[in-house]
Amino acid sequence: MAIETLAWRGDVPGYLEIIDQRLLPATTELMKLDTVQAVWDAIKTLAVRGAPAIGCAAAYGVVVGAQAASAERPDVTARAAREAADHLATSRPTAVNLFWALDRMRAALTRVEASAPNGAALAAALLAEARAIHEEDRATCRAIGRHGAALLPDPVRVLTHCNAGGLATADYGTALGCVYAAAEAGKDVRVVACETRPLLQGARLTSYELHRSGIPVTLISDGMSGFALQRGMVEAVIVGADRIARNGDTANKIGTYTHAVLARQHGVPFYVAAPASTFDLSLASGAEIPIEEREREELTTFNGRQIAPEGVGVWNPAFDVTPASLITAIVTERGVIQPVNEANVRAVLEGAL
Amino acid sequence: MAIETLAWRGDVPGYLEIIDQRLLPATTELMKLDTVQAVWDAIKTLAVRGAPAIGCAAAYGVVVGAQAASAERPDVTARAAREAADHLATSRPTAVNLFWALDRMRAALTRVEASAPNGAALAAALLAEARAIHEEDRATCRAIGRHGAALLPDPVRVLTHCNAGGLATADYGTALGCVYAAAEAGKDVRVVACETRPLLQGARLTSYELHRSGIPVTLISDGMSGFALQRGMVEAVIVGADRIARNGDTANKIGTYTHAVLARQHGVPFYVAAPASTFDLSLASGAEIPIEEREREELTTFNGRQIAPEGVGVWNPAFDVTPASLITAIVTERGVIQPVNEANVRAVLEGAL
Repeated sequence: MAIETLAWRGDVPGYLEIIDQRLLPATTELMKLDTVQAVWDAIKTLAVRGAPAIGCAAAYGVVVGAQAASAERPDVTARAAREAADHLATSRPTAVNLFWALDRMRAALTRVEASAPNGAALAAALLAEARAIHEEDRATCRAIGRHGAALLPDPVRVLTHCNAGGLATADYGTALGCVYAAAEAGKDVRVVACETRPLLQGARLTSYELHRSGIPVTLISDGMSGFALQRGMVEAVIVGADRIARNGDTANKIGTYTHAVLARQHGVPFYVAAPASTFDLSLASGAEIPIEEREREELTTFNGRQIAPEGVGVWNPAFDVTPASLITAIVTERGVIQPVNEANVRAVLEGAL
Repeated sequence: MAIETLAWRGDVPGYLEIIDQRLLPATTELMKLDTVQAVWDAIKTLAVRGAPAIGCAAAYGVVVGAQAASAERPDVTARAAREAADHLATSRPTAVNLFWALDRMRAALTRVEASAPNGAALAAALLAEARAIHEEDRATCRAIGRHGAALLPDPVRVLTHCNAGGLATADYGTALGCVYAAAEAGKDVRVVACETRPLLQGARLTSYELHRSGIPVTLISDGMSGFALQRGMVEAVIVGADRIARNGDTANKIGTYTHAVLARQHGVPFYVAAPASTFDLSLASGAEIPIEEREREELTTFNGRQIAPEGVGVWNPAFDVTPASLITAIVTERGVIQPVNEANVRAVLEGAL
């Protein structure tokens, strides 16, 4: 059921190919990204999005930078790779997978640069690391799916927000991975997808990939989640994450916190599904997570039409923070963190290392 | 600061003129409604909306039907007026002000039909009743504003949903009436306006009329209300209502319940502002309020663009129900109902009769 959200084409030199998610579901168009700036732009403008997918794209972006510099001089290639990593790190501030992937690329560079015979070999080593990150994300999705599916009753109606599916990862997703795995295990699973304003990833991406996969999906606007829960239309909420502090506080797409409060109000479990790379153990709590604020036009215009008056004030945070106390469990590839607290976060993340 | 949302032009015969709210804020276009079907369509498609404004429009719609039938025969005119009322009652199911206004028109008809010398005189009597309803709504807004403003601290940031302002009433609104009255009383009042998907009344109408009136307004998407409350950006929530059961359970625009749960979570008062005509004392609780479900296209398309895949399931209730237990107070023109329960509803509504 996975969608090929991004792929490296060729070897060294090669290029990153992504589905331009801004055009979905109306148009499925591939973008060829063969400069660091093109990769940066694609991340910044959400042509590629979803914390794990951003990490993979950024890793390949470092390769793009490295291969362009010099096929001969490894020092020139290494400098270009570091500049690429530094630049890509400025594309989006909240999803920590971006920094995690770039740190892995920098570490790989440090390991191999002294022994690389030339620039091409160094770029090839970086490509190998990017491919490893990409491949690991596939296995991670499957493991998260397996752990998450086991938490779901049968039948079950799952409410989700934004897109933490195949279009957000290298495989079939984190939150939606749990859904796909439950379906593969024979469970009767249906999804209530919140459209996710302002950029409508739920309407455009989640309902698209679920519908394409034959999972029954019902689209609602974000403000309907409370009424859906009040009416007993949902047995579980599952969302992805962009950064998780060591106490379990979770930054995810704006609107997530609202669903968490409502799930608690109605006694419905609220799950976060995310890879270990989403945890930022340097942060004591969610209060320390930087929250990206985006352009006012995302709220004042739509498809070229003005939907709010000129000059009106706008607040457009891309993420919010859900406190650990509202999260029933966090599902990772290394196991399930429940109850959510710092000791259990450490135990699950480190236990399986 | 009031906007002339609707007006009767001429005498008998005359016509109803409304601002076509579907085109705001980009275009301010007046519509001439001179058939019952045109009035019905305008209500159904939300060219005119907001519970009190719908009531006024429907009352004038009965006049439109009456005046077209016969200037001579009062029995023909009376039959046409009753048919108009019956038809207009099918336009939208939730806002009880519609049925309240139509019942008043029917009662006026019954009072005068035996003594009316001809059809024109009967239509003129119906016009007088419609004008009375319209005029009373003006006074009602002012009284609600006065009562509501007294509840607000200074300074205050008020979160609101949908549009319960000048564009929803004959004067400056119910929920926004409290805001305008607070500003007139010299309070430093600012508004956080939720855009209100799917039809964006908050973005298109509330931010438009507040901005035009010089009240500072910040537009957010509906899913951001939780984060705004968590961040301490709001001291009060005020919304309008479409129907209130006798225990105080309140149907209002979809998304309202979500804000009420979040307000309670953060210890912020949640107020409903609505005229006495919004109460349906025949209903014991909100469970009995019929909830309009609207077309799927409101969620799957925008401005002609497909934003969700064909064939996806959609749930599109136009309203939700907030239980009385989450409502701090209901502000009516007859006084403030607090705490909200059946005894206090009856006391305030009947006390001033």
